Amino acid sequence: MRAEIIAIGDELTSGRILNTTSNYAAHCLFQAGHEIHAMHTIGDTPELIAELLIQALKRVDVILVTGGLGATDDDLTNEAVSRALARPATLYPEILTRIQEKLGSRGCVSLDKLAWLPQGAELLNPDTPMAGHLLIHDQVPIFFLPGVPSQMHYLMDKRVLPWLAAHEATYPGLNSCQRLYKFFATSEMTINREIQELKLAPEIDVGYYPVGHDVHLSLTLRGHDQDLTLQLFNRACSQVEHHFGQAIYGRDLETLESVVGDLLTRQGLTLALAESCTGGLISSRITTVAGSSTYFLGGVTSYADSMKENCLGIEKELLSRHGAVSPETAAAMAMNIQRISGADLTLSVTGIAGPGGGTLEKPVGTVHMGLMGPTGLNLHQFDFSGDRMEIQAITAQTGLDLLRRHLLELKTVS
Amino acid sequence: MRAEIIAIGDELTSGRILNTTSNYAAHCLFQAGHEIHAMHTIGDTPELIAELLIQALKRVDVILVTGGLGATDDDLTNEAVSRALARPATLYPEILTRIQEKLGSRGCVSLDKLAWLPQGAELLNPDTPMAGHLLIHDQVPIFFLPGVPSQMHYLMDKRVLPWLAAHEATYPGLNSCQRLYKFFATSEMTINREIQELKLAPEIDVGYYPVGHDVHLSLTLRGHDQDLTLQLFNRACSQVEHHFGQAIYGRDLETLESVVGDLLTRQGLTLALAESCTGGLISSRITTVAGSSTYFLGGVTSYADSMKENCLGIEKELLSRHGAVSPETAAAMAMNIQRISGADLTLSVTGIAGPGGGTLEKPVGTVHMGLMGPTGLNLHQFDFSGDRMEIQAITAQTGLDLLRRHLLELKTVS
Repeated sequence: MRAEIIAIGDELTSGRILNTTSNYAAHCLFQAGHEIHAMHTIGDTPELIAELLIQALKRVDVILVTGGLGATDDDLTNEAVSRALARPATLYPEILTRIQEKLGSRGCVSLDKLAWLPQGAELLNPDTPMAGHLLIHDQVPIFFLPGVPSQMHYLMDKRVLPWLAAHEATYPGLNSCQRLYKFFATSEMTINREIQELKLAPEIDVGYYPVGHDVHLSLTLRGHDQDLTLQLFNRACSQVEHHFGQAIYGRDLETLESVVGDLLTRQGLTLALAESCTGGLISSRITTVAGSSTYFLGGVTSYADSMKENCLGIEKELLSRHGAVSPETAAAMAMNIQRISGADLTLSVTGIAGPGGGTLEKPVGTVHMGLMGPTGLNLHQFDFSGDRMEIQAITAQTGLDLLRRHLLELKTVS
Repeated sequence: MRAEIIAIGDELTSGRILNTTSNYAAHCLFQAGHEIHAMHTIGDTPELIAELLIQALKRVDVILVTGGLGATDDDLTNEAVSRALARPATLYPEILTRIQEKLGSRGCVSLDKLAWLPQGAELLNPDTPMAGHLLIHDQVPIFFLPGVPSQMHYLMDKRVLPWLAAHEATYPGLNSCQRLYKFFATSEMTINREIQELKLAPEIDVGYYPVGHDVHLSLTLRGHDQDLTLQLFNRACSQVEHHFGQAIYGRDLETLESVVGDLLTRQGLTLALAESCTGGLISSRITTVAGSSTYFLGGVTSYADSMKENCLGIEKELLSRHGAVSPETAAAMAMNIQRISGADLTLSVTGIAGPGGGTLEKPVGTVHMGLMGPTGLNLHQFDFSGDRMEIQAITAQTGLDLLRRHLLELKTVS
């Protein structure tokens, strides 16, 4: 089935808000085997909404419209649709009731607008006061979803995808296989050249995407025959995995922090950190993973020298002789957080994220790391470039990748 | 001038990659006084690229196309444009030279593709091997920019916007004023109702945007007369600022962490943190701000109880009597990090981010904070909802807002 996604909102066309809902919709539809013909973003302008909707009705089999369904004055989607499709605004008393139940007497009047929908609209979530409805027009289902990401995601998962699955006979999708491989510190061109040498089956669609300091490699295959599609796809995946090995740090939704977490869990090891220039970023990324409390003990963000002394017990003399950004300090940070926390593995990071603080000898981007593990201490020095946030990001990514590679080595040894 | 933005890439229509470049382009063009008619996202499909480009040429005064300019096999924009606009692919020897200069003999052959552009293309960045060119077709400037955000941003700032400014006589923009006000913990409907009561001038466009746990309120005014536009706009801004006062935490690009940083700087105070359930997120956000080393001393991420004992010196007995998630532990964390760091102000956070770890008495979302300052210790308890990352995010946002409000109070007192 071919789909088109229309996102509505002046906040999007003025660039004030990043459109993440269209991305989510595209991802879900693609995974379900549908093809996204195009995604459009337009302002809260009734004429434009009407024009694009009427065009899309002629082009595709399903339409998703997000945004402009709220109760504030700038929400105009329903009015535009009523006019464009000649479906007069109709009062849905059940919506009024829901709103009254939820809010009681508090300012209901201003929410009345939510209860007027284009004639024929079917509520997607009749039990809660959340906007969202389905309109089948000229046999094309048009889903209207809120622009608020959490609500939009909910309705996409719980209503739109199940509806499309239930109507598969009318709106079939292709068998679709896709896998993402994630690389850090390997260039896009290197990956491209090596993929060419692998000579994957020509039906496999290969995509290359630099994402921050990573490269994501995607393999996609879509076909009518389920078994054949899967067989071809799995063969290509094996070729890629066999060739690139540990250069691939993760697949699909895996992140460096989730992969590091898995490795720690499987080896029964604990981790602690001492961060300076990353200011807690590595720690924060590690603790986004559910269950990280089983292997992550914590860390010290020793941003000021006084914290390096008082909290990590690093000697003032060492700091003044070598400076806070030095292999000596990185070593002391890794060893001392090991002693304090008792963790099996510790990582320390000290560097200059900029924009200030650089010198000729130690320019912005100079970073030292110490990795202390069962086999001893390893020190690493880097010379990153970019602005403050880029340097913090690549430092965190590098630190996590060091942990990953070290854990893979430990696994091989044991 | 009316603009249309076309983003190209299968990685976008399959939802694998979030389209941030169109957002950036829209933001820049809008700020420069232009109007964004529509933004489109399509796959690497030559026919679609051609169709959309030809349509856009009839509709708008300037077109931005991003993506598909690279050297990997899936980059097809130039070929599509050559065919669509009957401008045969032409060899640009200067591009070849640049590539050879940069890479020497390393794998040049595969990059030759970059040197073939549609006839009439003008290089945007002739001095470095970065894709990007301008084509003026039927008197409409079409800018082709790389899909890689950092390169796209660079060319947007250094080439596209200066070019449009230099050609203002041909492509004039309106005088455009816009301001964003950011609220935390105030509902969209409340803000809407109060804005209605303020009776701003009807020419002012008002937008309401929930962003995570914040609400952003935008005021926009565009007009031909510069003085009049500015006068009307400033009056509306004063009305809003006067009415909402401290409920507004920041304007435009300000964040809670930058506002807290400004307040600390102006009052000459230092800050340290003791985080548990946020795992370093607050610390990480504070250190994204350039210059934060002048007021941020650091912190302890005492994720495990052992870190609370060994690093923060919290007594085992206190932890076992009250639990790690308790007002008593939050108080001890705030006081002990104050003692260790010597900071003027400290914030502690301990809670249950989930998905595991909740009990009947202390369900997931229970969070305690301690704020220790010159005027003593304040304890706060919260009962948040959402998934792990949502709870971490709202906890961090709440902690930063507590700091902001406390610093505003200190300022009033002193």
